[in-house]
Amino acid sequence: MKKLTLGIIGAGRIGRLHVDNLQLVPEIHVKSVSDVVIDHLKSWACEKQIDVLTTDYKELLHDSEIDAVFICSPTTTHANLIKEAAAAGKHIFCEKPVSFSVEETEEALAEVKKAGVKIQVGFNRRFDPNFRKIRSLVQEGTVGTPHILKITSRDPEPPNADYVKSSGGLFMDMTIHDFDMARYVMDSEVVEVSAYGTVLVDPAIGEAGDIDTAIITLKFANGALGVIDNSRQAVYGYDQRVEIFGDKGTAQAENNRATTVEVSTAEHVTKDKPLYFFLERYTQAYIDEVTEFAKACLEDTDVTCTGFDGLQAERIAKAAKLSLQKGQPVQLSSIAQIVTN
Amino acid sequence: MKKLTLGIIGAGRIGRLHVDNLQLVPEIHVKSVSDVVIDHLKSWACEKQIDVLTTDYKELLHDSEIDAVFICSPTTTHANLIKEAAAAGKHIFCEKPVSFSVEETEEALAEVKKAGVKIQVGFNRRFDPNFRKIRSLVQEGTVGTPHILKITSRDPEPPNADYVKSSGGLFMDMTIHDFDMARYVMDSEVVEVSAYGTVLVDPAIGEAGDIDTAIITLKFANGALGVIDNSRQAVYGYDQRVEIFGDKGTAQAENNRATTVEVSTAEHVTKDKPLYFFLERYTQAYIDEVTEFAKACLEDTDVTCTGFDGLQAERIAKAAKLSLQKGQPVQLSSIAQIVTN
Amino acid sequence: MKKLTLGIIGAGRIGRLHVDNLQLVPEIHVKSVSDVVIDHLKSWACEKQIDVLTTDYKELLHDSEIDAVFICSPTTTHANLIKEAAAAGKHIFCEKPVSFSVEETEEALAEVKKAGVKIQVGFNRRFDPNFRKIRSLVQEGTVGTPHILKITSRDPEPPNADYVKSSGGLFMDMTIHDFDMARYVMDSEVVEVSAYGTVLVDPAIGEAGDIDTAIITLKFANGALGVIDNSRQAVYGYDQRVEIFGDKGTAQAENNRATTVEVSTAEHVTKDKPLYFFLERYTQAYIDEVTEFAKACLEDTDVTCTGFDGLQAERIAKAAKLSLQKGQPVQLSSIAQIVTN
Amino acid sequence: MKKLTLGIIGAGRIGRLHVDNLQLVPEIHVKSVSDVVIDHLKSWACEKQIDVLTTDYKELLHDSEIDAVFICSPTTTHANLIKEAAAAGKHIFCEKPVSFSVEETEEALAEVKKAGVKIQVGFNRRFDPNFRKIRSLVQEGTVGTPHILKITSRDPEPPNADYVKSSGGLFMDMTIHDFDMARYVMDSEVVEVSAYGTVLVDPAIGEAGDIDTAIITLKFANGALGVIDNSRQAVYGYDQRVEIFGDKGTAQAENNRATTVEVSTAEHVTKDKPLYFFLERYTQAYIDEVTEFAKACLEDTDVTCTGFDGLQAERIAKAAKLSLQKGQPVQLSSIAQIVTN
Repeated sequence: MKKLTLGIIGAGRIGRLHVDNLQLVPEIHVKSVSDVVIDHLKSWACEKQIDVLTTDYKELLHDSEIDAVFICSPTTTHANLIKEAAAAGKHIFCEKPVSFSVEETEEALAEVKKAGVKIQVGFNRRFDPNFRKIRSLVQEGTVGTPHILKITSRDPEPPNADYVKSSGGLFMDMTIHDFDMARYVMDSEVVEVSAYGTVLVDPAIGEAGDIDTAIITLKFANGALGVIDNSRQAVYGYDQRVEIFGDKGTAQAENNRATTVEVSTAEHVTKDKPLYFFLERYTQAYIDEVTEFAKACLEDTDVTCTGFDGLQAERIAKAAKLSLQKGQPVQLSSIAQIVTN
Repeated sequence: MKKLTLGIIGAGRIGRLHVDNLQLVPEIHVKSVSDVVIDHLKSWACEKQIDVLTTDYKELLHDSEIDAVFICSPTTTHANLIKEAAAAGKHIFCEKPVSFSVEETEEALAEVKKAGVKIQVGFNRRFDPNFRKIRSLVQEGTVGTPHILKITSRDPEPPNADYVKSSGGLFMDMTIHDFDMARYVMDSEVVEVSAYGTVLVDPAIGEAGDIDTAIITLKFANGALGVIDNSRQAVYGYDQRVEIFGDKGTAQAENNRATTVEVSTAEHVTKDKPLYFFLERYTQAYIDEVTEFAKACLEDTDVTCTGFDGLQAERIAKAAKLSLQKGQPVQLSSIAQIVTN
Repeated sequence: MKKLTLGIIGAGRIGRLHVDNLQLVPEIHVKSVSDVVIDHLKSWACEKQIDVLTTDYKELLHDSEIDAVFICSPTTTHANLIKEAAAAGKHIFCEKPVSFSVEETEEALAEVKKAGVKIQVGFNRRFDPNFRKIRSLVQEGTVGTPHILKITSRDPEPPNADYVKSSGGLFMDMTIHDFDMARYVMDSEVVEVSAYGTVLVDPAIGEAGDIDTAIITLKFANGALGVIDNSRQAVYGYDQRVEIFGDKGTAQAENNRATTVEVSTAEHVTKDKPLYFFLERYTQAYIDEVTEFAKACLEDTDVTCTGFDGLQAERIAKAAKLSLQKGQPVQLSSIAQIVTN
Repeated sequence: MKKLTLGIIGAGRIGRLHVDNLQLVPEIHVKSVSDVVIDHLKSWACEKQIDVLTTDYKELLHDSEIDAVFICSPTTTHANLIKEAAAAGKHIFCEKPVSFSVEETEEALAEVKKAGVKIQVGFNRRFDPNFRKIRSLVQEGTVGTPHILKITSRDPEPPNADYVKSSGGLFMDMTIHDFDMARYVMDSEVVEVSAYGTVLVDPAIGEAGDIDTAIITLKFANGALGVIDNSRQAVYGYDQRVEIFGDKGTAQAENNRATTVEVSTAEHVTKDKPLYFFLERYTQAYIDEVTEFAKACLEDTDVTCTGFDGLQAERIAKAAKLSLQKGQPVQLSSIAQIVTN
């Protein structure tokens, strides 16, 4: 069996999650892990049978056995790491967002293109069965020509203010998933964005210069309209719904719950709350995205979620931020130039 | 506009309910009401613009203006009243059960037949839109040849022991609706009954010689099987569900609720309980059954729920009681002889 | 029993619907009906036992027996009729919208105030049990402080272009119900409106100068955000959903369906489509709104839906139209001056 | 890390499924596999990195490195294999049913007891999250004292007649899962069984001496009643529902579906069919049951599903068969003697 040998750059929460999932894929061998601090990772790396644990990511890039790297370090480091990894001829899986700067992302993607390596961006929701079905209902014409897209995306608990400060803001950190979902479901580019945002969940988020509640309206190139509503805190759990309405019907993806059990008592009729957060909701999607990446590298096939997809989501996020600041709609064409596709 | 003039015999809860509903039907005029005691009914009758309030039901039967009577008096009086009304040439709407004795019911129905008047039995559930749809899915072949019928029928609160004593027992009083529903949905006769019953809700019901919890299994002439489960107390409300399973699929009628609202909080996700009891659940069905009766009398059309339907439900109830007593299945053919059809 | 005697001005579809419903209310006597053409109404009026059928609405206003009038004529006539009815001392039930001009509406309401008569505007959806429950969940604090309101409102079939031309446009004709619903549920005024609209359903609607698909974003005085999505054609039926999301949870009102039956076959699992249109969905709400109006007149109580509510919905509709034209958000404060409250 | 070394006896569909799942559990090493014919298994065993592939199961029993065996061979061989494995000091995971003979099962379990090894029976449904929740709602008292248990269990397609002949019959082959579920949820022994069965799906099943459609009624030691309905063919998929009704409420476990997507078109409103069959529905339950077995062996803890559970399910199956033959209820106490507990 042909195997893909991997190095992981950045072993925070998401990096370690990927290692867990990668070890379920028979075609993959996770050889090396790098992080800026590694003392606390030693027993973990031993348990996971990682061969190399290092503070120097260049060690991974210079290791000729390593076919591909996972970039799971802070967002500000992504663009340079992509360039270096591309230069070293490694395939790349990069967490979202690719960067906080559309220009940096474009430069990095240009290097990827030049090097001819693969890049997949970590928009895990594209691998969720509910949303895959929504997209396929559009593709197959079941709902007809799309008219209206609705995405509800609410986290169960707000991040702390420190995280918020370095997050790039709600649109770049959280809504970016929804912007990608919008393009994925609609299969058409966003051409205009109009954002309303406010601080209703936690004043500390406002003090950190961000918002925690938003409604973003989208115009697509195909003429359809879309709307996303976000909150940093849905006390009942992770609220992840998508609806696509077209001239032949509508399709709605509801939340997932732990069981189907409905309980009726003298007080009320209850069912399970939505699965708590992304680790619970997207468990299988995280496995499926790395499995697809391995397959794409080993069999030289296309990835579902490209560098261009990463770039476009960033451009929409930037347009949304600008719309919020200016209090009026913003054309996507005003956000940088696309040099890569 | 041709009008139907009515007399009501028995102005208890169900009699008064029928009066309310009859007054919504433009083709109907409720002229007279009789009951054994009427003092407490005077202001009600005045408000309802009843012309005649009497303690003598014969007054209604001798009134040539009256086309039809509603028999809403205690069950033990039904058979004789049917015979007298038939002899007087009045059409008859009779509450369920027709009587506690299959023989008495058969005799009464023989008189109806002889007189050539119409009789409709008050199995209101046949007029419920959910169950009508279940039946039509069978008739139209959507679920194919029926294999299994399941009826869940649970009351929200148990009757008191006094009521139980004169009720004819769970099977004759409560399950009789389900026995009729079984025949209505399946459109095939019951040929064998096997009943399990016990006292789990209220010991006083046991002391009154009855049961409050039961599972009754049915064999139909068409080879299908059926099961009914009953309880005198579902604390969450009136539980009225029917499922028909056939070789092309299954159809399930769920409970009705006051609203469609679903509420998600940090504690739980809730929706409305089932509508509380028969007055809430079958509001429209009660109106529709009397409307159909009026139409049948005025236009000489068939009724949905005949005297024979009343008789058959009684025979199944009697078989169920016998099965419970003997601890083994009972053939319906062993329950009296059918002289009327 | 004290009775309310009514005159109906305008016997089109909605006027005749009100007559049907008014005749179910024992406290109401519909004495007179006026319309510009009445020949086709004669047999209907006879069947409904209307005493007076006239082409002259003034006859109703001068009839001292008449306590109140229903204004169901074309929108352009509403404001003057309100003024005349008020001057004649009649209570007023007026269909929505009150007028196409905020100034005219304000003038008419000023006359109502001066005359001291009651006015109720026909926002029937306030009487729907689902939406009443949504509002009460907000009022009782079950969902906490409201953060996001979402309204989906889609008609099953588009109007023809002729209707569109005289309709006042999507926002004034259709969305006006949703603007009222937004204020009703949120119990807070709208302060800013941002509208996206387009023609995706029927080019003829575009040629008539209107749109058929829209997403409207709202800012409320309490800081919350809202979004309404509209389409003139949902092929699966009348889509009427409301969600209110707050810091203690979310509440969603789903569509109503004719039955609860779910059918599973080898091909698919199906349930009933949403009830077809407003006549089916809001049957009871239409009855309840006129019952409340009668009660308010007879017992001198407040109405749920005031003239001011009618005015505010119009102002939001006007702001939405302006936003669509200008391509940017519009402050509600820029829409006329409020002289009446 | 302490590891459990396993041998698998019988590499048919279920044996190979267990190997797949066992290889996901880090604490487990599957060393050996035996079957009567092995030629077709060689490449599979190689891919799965099985050390020993043999036609002689005794090789596994004599291998001192092997801690436990999975008995996945035909049911008629189970009892002897259990005895031999127990004598060899191996822990045992045995597929259901333990045997077709209550006496043989009792003898085998006596040997297990004597040897002091662990035995777990493969009632995988005990590990399904829906049913676990149903049981826990009973245990925690949420539904109060149980009154009525309802189990719907229908396969998506009937087995062929050859399988039927060696299956032990519907009750022993299929309903045995439901009999175990009944005891698991109710936490009380079945004391009486009454079975109705017939052939409605496939005449070949009848010719093979079996039934394909059944309703089985149960009486429990705690006084509650239960009912199971079975069909060998639900064309819409694997129908696996459980409801427990008690004096404080009812809890219903619905089917699982691939996605939550609901599609509304002009024709109908649809959602996904139930997951097709046991491999899809109980994917995780199969993994969880072997993980628990490994844990029980390694940490000397109790198993959820004991040999006694296997025995009791068989006794109920036997009683059901007898009830069907005799046409009357059968006491469980009349089925053999329990020598093991």
